[in-house]
Amino acid sequence: RRLLYQDVGVIGFPFSKGQPQPGVRSGPAAIRNAGLIEKIHNLERDVKDYGDLDFEYIADDPPYGLIKNPRNVGAANKKISAAVSNVINDNRLCISLGGDHAMSIGTLHGHATARPDMCVLWIDAHVDINTPLTSMTGNIHGTPVSFVVHELKDYVPVLPGFEWMNTCIHAKDIAFIGVRDIDPGERYIMEKFGLVCYSIHDIDHLGLVEVLKRAMDNVNPNRDRPIHISFDIDALDPLLAQSTGTPVYGGLTFREGMYIVEEVGSTGMVTGIDMVEVNPELGTKFEQNVTVNTAVDVLTAALGKRRHGNIPTGYVLPKAKN
Amino acid sequence: RRLLYQDVGVIGFPFSKGQPQPGVRSGPAAIRNAGLIEKIHNLERDVKDYGDLDFEYIADDPPYGLIKNPRNVGAANKKISAAVSNVINDNRLCISLGGDHAMSIGTLHGHATARPDMCVLWIDAHVDINTPLTSMTGNIHGTPVSFVVHELKDYVPVLPGFEWMNTCIHAKDIAFIGVRDIDPGERYIMEKFGLVCYSIHDIDHLGLVEVLKRAMDNVNPNRDRPIHISFDIDALDPLLAQSTGTPVYGGLTFREGMYIVEEVGSTGMVTGIDMVEVNPELGTKFEQNVTVNTAVDVLTAALGKRRHGNIPTGYVLPKAKN
Amino acid sequence: RRLLYQDVGVIGFPFSKGQPQPGVRSGPAAIRNAGLIEKIHNLERDVKDYGDLDFEYIADDPPYGLIKNPRNVGAANKKISAAVSNVINDNRLCISLGGDHAMSIGTLHGHATARPDMCVLWIDAHVDINTPLTSMTGNIHGTPVSFVVHELKDYVPVLPGFEWMNTCIHAKDIAFIGVRDIDPGERYIMEKFGLVCYSIHDIDHLGLVEVLKRAMDNVNPNRDRPIHISFDIDALDPLLAQSTGTPVYGGLTFREGMYIVEEVGSTGMVTGIDMVEVNPELGTKFEQNVTVNTAVDVLTAALGKRRHGNIPTGYVLPKAKN
Ligand SMILES: [Mn+2]
Ligand SMILES: [Mn+2]
Ligand SMILES: [Mn+2]
Ligand SMILES: [Mn+2]
Ligand SMILES: [Mn+2]
Ligand SMILES: [Mn+2]
Repeated sequence: RRLLYQDVGVIGFPFSKGQPQPGVRSGPAAIRNAGLIEKIHNLERDVKDYGDLDFEYIADDPPYGLIKNPRNVGAANKKISAAVSNVINDNRLCISLGGDHAMSIGTLHGHATARPDMCVLWIDAHVDINTPLTSMTGNIHGTPVSFVVHELKDYVPVLPGFEWMNTCIHAKDIAFIGVRDIDPGERYIMEKFGLVCYSIHDIDHLGLVEVLKRAMDNVNPNRDRPIHISFDIDALDPLLAQSTGTPVYGGLTFREGMYIVEEVGSTGMVTGIDMVEVNPELGTKFEQNVTVNTAVDVLTAALGKRRHGNIPTGYVLPKAKN
Repeated sequence: RRLLYQDVGVIGFPFSKGQPQPGVRSGPAAIRNAGLIEKIHNLERDVKDYGDLDFEYIADDPPYGLIKNPRNVGAANKKISAAVSNVINDNRLCISLGGDHAMSIGTLHGHATARPDMCVLWIDAHVDINTPLTSMTGNIHGTPVSFVVHELKDYVPVLPGFEWMNTCIHAKDIAFIGVRDIDPGERYIMEKFGLVCYSIHDIDHLGLVEVLKRAMDNVNPNRDRPIHISFDIDALDPLLAQSTGTPVYGGLTFREGMYIVEEVGSTGMVTGIDMVEVNPELGTKFEQNVTVNTAVDVLTAALGKRRHGNIPTGYVLPKAKN
Repeated sequence: RRLLYQDVGVIGFPFSKGQPQPGVRSGPAAIRNAGLIEKIHNLERDVKDYGDLDFEYIADDPPYGLIKNPRNVGAANKKISAAVSNVINDNRLCISLGGDHAMSIGTLHGHATARPDMCVLWIDAHVDINTPLTSMTGNIHGTPVSFVVHELKDYVPVLPGFEWMNTCIHAKDIAFIGVRDIDPGERYIMEKFGLVCYSIHDIDHLGLVEVLKRAMDNVNPNRDRPIHISFDIDALDPLLAQSTGTPVYGGLTFREGMYIVEEVGSTGMVTGIDMVEVNPELGTKFEQNVTVNTAVDVLTAALGKRRHGNIPTGYVLPKAKN
């Protein structure tokens, strides 16, 4: 396996303004504390920790229609986009630790800036493609995809704080996997613009192996485009990942989550990964540990850790002196 | 998809005399409180709530052999049969909320009275086909199928309270899915009369997609017969549906339960559904909520709610004024 | 189905010196208390309980390199080997209740002594094939396979306490299923000596039905060799089997565990089963019960209990006197 980028950069976005629960800001710290950097190092990949981004708080930020915190979210994503571009321009696969999913406006924008040929796998219970006009909650973490898709330009108002940004991918460049909770407007958008979505029903019907093959054939038929994996921890079943803000029953199993990233990772084409919506302040201590450790397992699996084992370079088996 | 019946009727049977735990009487109220009626309404199906049936208590009801409460169960099922016939004769798909599974003597009888051509999918950890003579517990909820199958007539005594009723389906008109705990007599009956049963082993071996196709081919090869789904919540795994009287490990996953009713529902031929053995007084508060919400999810999925989303009629996507 | 051995022997090894947690010594008692013997009897198989083996404690047992308790483990396994040989020479399928997995040095050695043509299915989250020189923990329960495989002879020092023993199987005679946590040295050994291993990734990719078929084709292509199933309860997912010393997420489901032993058992060729690493002193009372009952379910399924039911010999269905 040839890797497009051998080296890895890790950057944290302790960001929560895309939804109401502040605990999600502790995601990057919790994931680091669970040993992420060392575990990447153990995979014999050079890893640089870019630390956490700081976000200034904009006090005067009234809602735009229902949409909350537009200026805070817009300004944060401008910084996030630049930060992700920077990591990828350093020739490093960029791991973005969230934070809520609104930050993926920036990670996708930054990734596309550095690698305009990239495509996206969005692993999530939700499609997060409400526009600011169809959103029923006003939480931007349910809308990020609408900001980045060219075809939706006429349907997404330029929110205050977002004047800097342009759409950056086509509808055909993103595939969704694990979906099981779609709003009416979202379903309408998916069908109108031909966005590819593999729901849990599709996985139940076709099996994950086939679904993943089809999703890759959709966005990356020759397996030659850089891949951005946007992994919302709520893609996984709540029995497994309880410490997240909007859990939905009947999710991906731990094994399905691992299988997806192992297979996509094995193409060698992954250049960006978001790990979002880990909220280490929700649930019991046990549930917090399971959720955080699962996030780390998913990330290291995407980077090449194999469940059937890895042999370090130059390993020598000791003989007995019998 | 053409629906045999577009409109829906919901009726509750707060009935527990088929087994020892009275809490199962709270099933209908708990399922309604979780928003069933509104959620059906949101699917753009006209829904009428027929309320809960009242059952008089017959104090003088000594056992028949081992069988407990025969007169109470018999009298209740006479009323249940008439109530279900009435809903279906109103041209409404009948959703019967239990209550324990003994009530399905009445729901099947009433359904068959209104639609003699109907067939049955029995989704359950158990086959509930002990006769009053083979039952080892004396609880009628483990015997309902024996009362309704023509071929078993000679093996089922006419219990006091059951003088009103006749068998109403053939052995070939029912298929069981999800089974994992069968008594010796039940297994004997299944084989002797050629009843079709897909155990959890069969699902493990063939996959659920194939099992469901075979079950439908067995009872409804042309997909033109009305279908009665008798859904015992204990078909699902106890990790998911703990609040039930006789849980058995290794059950259907949430996703498998959803997939079954989605697929059967998509034929448009479902005319009756039982949701039984939800006991909201067992387990922790959390387990009670999960069990009850799962029951609601199964019912709405059977009625057309899709995990990949539903678009309301006439939906208009708002444009931005950029 | 013809059974190689119809009769069954059960023997307990309350043994914990292969790892640090003494609670695993209570495994045999807990499994017996959950009704194992009676449940085997109900399958119409003659069952003899050989009781529990007693192990003398060797106080003076300093480590060999990192390896802890070599003399205690070696002496215990000498007794275990003789005990297992004895059961099989009584023409009984030998069920060995552990105890930690270090005891399988003895069960495999004893089985191979009585039936040199036997082959092994090792169902485990781990491959337990570290040598005493590659082990990073010094716990012998992570090394038992290295002691028995001919091809590894030059890599395993003769530990004090192990002077009595010889290797007894070839690398091609063992297949691993359920693996998801392999040390670097273990992976190296697996590849160097061509040991067959089906990880959880393989099950996710190929499906369990295909994996099991391949594993059997590997070690027992004509289905004519006696089979030793070494079942480490940690093969199962921790959500299910929490009461074990080294749980690893993303394991076999209850249903997958059952399916494996049902299918292997149905060949009629099983002559030995280890059930190890059940530690009834770990986890909550609920978790302890689930773990222990699961162990019993796995054992009875291996012996012929079917999830779609068993009919006792000569069963007569009672007729009604209507
Ligand atoms: Mn989500
Ligand atoms: Mn999301
Ligand atoms: Mn049941
Ligand atoms: Mn039932
Ligand atoms: Mn293990
Ligand atoms: Mn083991």
